Amino acid sequence: MIFPDFNDAASYTDFLGTLAALPHGFRAATTRLTFTPKERPTREPYAMNLGAIVADEPTERFAAVFTRNAFPGAPVILGRERLCEPSLQGVLINNKIANVRSATGLDDARRLTTAFGRAAGVSERRLLSVSTGIIGWSLPVPEMEAELPKLAAGLNPGSALDVARAIMTTDSYPKIRRVEVGGGSIIGIAKGAGMIEPNMATMLVFILTDLTVARDELRQILARTVDATFNAISVDGDMSTSDTVLAMSSGRVPPVPTHEFEAALASLCGFLAQDVVRNGEGTSHVVAVRMTGLPSDQIARAAAKAIVNSPLVKTAIYGNDPNVGRILAALGDYLGSNGIEADPADLVIRVGDETVFEKGYFTIDRDKEVRLSDYLKSTSMNPRSVGFPPHQRIVDIGVSCGRGAGTALVWGSDLSDQYVHENADYRS
Amino acid sequence: MIFPDFNDAASYTDFLGTLAALPHGFRAATTRLTFTPKERPTREPYAMNLGAIVADEPTERFAAVFTRNAFPGAPVILGRERLCEPSLQGVLINNKIANVRSATGLDDARRLTTAFGRAAGVSERRLLSVSTGIIGWSLPVPEMEAELPKLAAGLNPGSALDVARAIMTTDSYPKIRRVEVGGGSIIGIAKGAGMIEPNMATMLVFILTDLTVARDELRQILARTVDATFNAISVDGDMSTSDTVLAMSSGRVPPVPTHEFEAALASLCGFLAQDVVRNGEGTSHVVAVRMTGLPSDQIARAAAKAIVNSPLVKTAIYGNDPNVGRILAALGDYLGSNGIEADPADLVIRVGDETVFEKGYFTIDRDKEVRLSDYLKSTSMNPRSVGFPPHQRIVDIGVSCGRGAGTALVWGSDLSDQYVHENADYRS
Repeated sequence: MIFPDFNDAASYTDFLGTLAALPHGFRAATTRLTFTPKERPTREPYAMNLGAIVADEPTERFAAVFTRNAFPGAPVILGRERLCEPSLQGVLINNKIANVRSATGLDDARRLTTAFGRAAGVSERRLLSVSTGIIGWSLPVPEMEAELPKLAAGLNPGSALDVARAIMTTDSYPKIRRVEVGGGSIIGIAKGAGMIEPNMATMLVFILTDLTVARDELRQILARTVDATFNAISVDGDMSTSDTVLAMSSGRVPPVPTHEFEAALASLCGFLAQDVVRNGEGTSHVVAVRMTGLPSDQIARAAAKAIVNSPLVKTAIYGNDPNVGRILAALGDYLGSNGIEADPADLVIRVGDETVFEKGYFTIDRDKEVRLSDYLKSTSMNPRSVGFPPHQRIVDIGVSCGRGAGTALVWGSDLSDQYVHENADYRS
Repeated sequence: MIFPDFNDAASYTDFLGTLAALPHGFRAATTRLTFTPKERPTREPYAMNLGAIVADEPTERFAAVFTRNAFPGAPVILGRERLCEPSLQGVLINNKIANVRSATGLDDARRLTTAFGRAAGVSERRLLSVSTGIIGWSLPVPEMEAELPKLAAGLNPGSALDVARAIMTTDSYPKIRRVEVGGGSIIGIAKGAGMIEPNMATMLVFILTDLTVARDELRQILARTVDATFNAISVDGDMSTSDTVLAMSSGRVPPVPTHEFEAALASLCGFLAQDVVRNGEGTSHVVAVRMTGLPSDQIARAAAKAIVNSPLVKTAIYGNDPNVGRILAALGDYLGSNGIEADPADLVIRVGDETVFEKGYFTIDRDKEVRLSDYLKSTSMNPRSVGFPPHQRIVDIGVSCGRGAGTALVWGSDLSDQYVHENADYRS
């Protein structure tokens, strides 16, 4: 499941192609349209991708986890309704506009699923609408409707690669993972980039399997898996209005034991979650923080996130500057602000293989700083390298706070000027 | 108290000079030294500023508020002890190294106050040590000790301007405010720049007054004032290990009524807090969020901070891009993650004079986007303009969430590539 290093986009895309075959019982298609957003000051046209994934038959074996944002988009509101339906058959996806709180948003989502359903021969109630992009603008429904027959006609049982590419916004490459287990397979495709916080964030993940798995079991397994993987990542600490993880089983292949299925899904989602961080906007380092010794898992996770979300920690890592004092400051900020007791004498902080704090004090010197800086350089990626992940090395930070039983593992990114550039002119 | 616009550093410095006269009963001095940090890979010398403020007589009328970070620096640990002393006479300040958790940190702070006290004729127990800069490195005590006689000899009753300049780290200009009240005055000097979160953050503030005010009263007033001002600002969400606000009264001038003193101090600290944000690393916009309608003031403040701390909101403002969807997303993230109910139908979001969300939906169109973008441009400063604040205009965001009684006003900054540059190579 560990990817090789890549030197160019072509070899990465070739490699993804070998993973992207749809499991039995699914078809997919994509298309593209242009439109002029009515909220935008200038009148240049925008391009929008449409994608669709449809099962050959309706399936009761589906599960979804949505954002906890208090102001979710119309697709999430509709999706929550559809979770109660006896069966699901497919999903219609667009990028560019997230369909959040425009006055006609919910009607727009219903109109689009109805129109796509008519074209694809699927009941509207068995379709989800999923949108990602700008918050607050409205979907160009007439232009989208006009493309839907073509999208439906293109559905074919080949590859998920085009859909993985079509759902990208500021992602710089498609993300796909695959596990083979028993006689079947599970594939996952994801988009992420900006606004990635735990608890999900304009992150869209579609998981397809031909392995048979009962609806209730799938829903429980997906909830646990999302919590340990996608909810443990953070690119910029923002949880979007649109985050969605959808899993569907076509049931074409006999089941494997539940624990095997769950282990396979956890592995797939763990790697996919790291992929999302790695392709975060302007990411040049993926950072893992392993926290132990706090009173509960929940506190351990919040403390670990306080470290990976600290702008000062993130910028130091970006600069390959082993400014380990900032790790202590970020941790102490979280603990002190939340009234959690911690004795510096119990604290151990490790970066890579180097212990930088123990027995109450920093243990750094000139030689160690050189080794730490070399370590940061060795785990660095050029955030402007476009179209492929050059490697999968990460910055490994371990923090032990004492004797508490709480532990956590979270993943985050550094903060580069490229992140600022991308987000200062996302729309204009 | 509103400053004029400035076109260059010289006119700003001249203006500060008119505010900087020390209140009766205080003397100040600064000096400078070079040293080679033993933790640094290269051996180039570093420059460190020393500053001192000393009252002519010991005073029982002093108060201090320190960081809540769980791992405070040695000066904060020592300072908390000294709060219990019957009187204080002065403070020794250095920039460059924050003296946090080096093995000898507490001894270093004591040695330095002892040596300075000997040179200045002040009991060591009546001196605070205050340090700001890199976390984890140790102070160059021998080099500092060698300079202390010169520092003590330089103490004079002139101006606070040199101290305001000496305590700067990545600040690009000194910050001083002054209020005249009754027959006396209050002056405040501050340093801030990076790592500025509420609850204080390598923010140092020294408040000096000749007005007589009782010790207990001063301590209560300072606590309330800091909470409403310095704890309501946020540059990067990190609370430092060293934040300190110190207030001293020389008691040379008869008291004014308590409410007058408190109002004057609140005004001074409010402007000084905004100054700290305005001079935050790479700040090109100061952003105020006025939140109303949530269940409590505490929740309202946390929700307002979630908006000013959102990297996506901050980068959009930096780009003069009125991407108001990100305000909704950041607010919804905070509310949803914390289980706080909010009905979009009750929500009103205002940016400057424009209402962008009401009655459940975004109300944006092409013309409004143009006006919003113009508004953001009009409040923008060049983050690379060095040495003076060009103006005091701010981005005013108002959010009303419903009928709850909780309100808050917080100040934050945008996020520019300049912030990333400064923090990716602060030490190297």
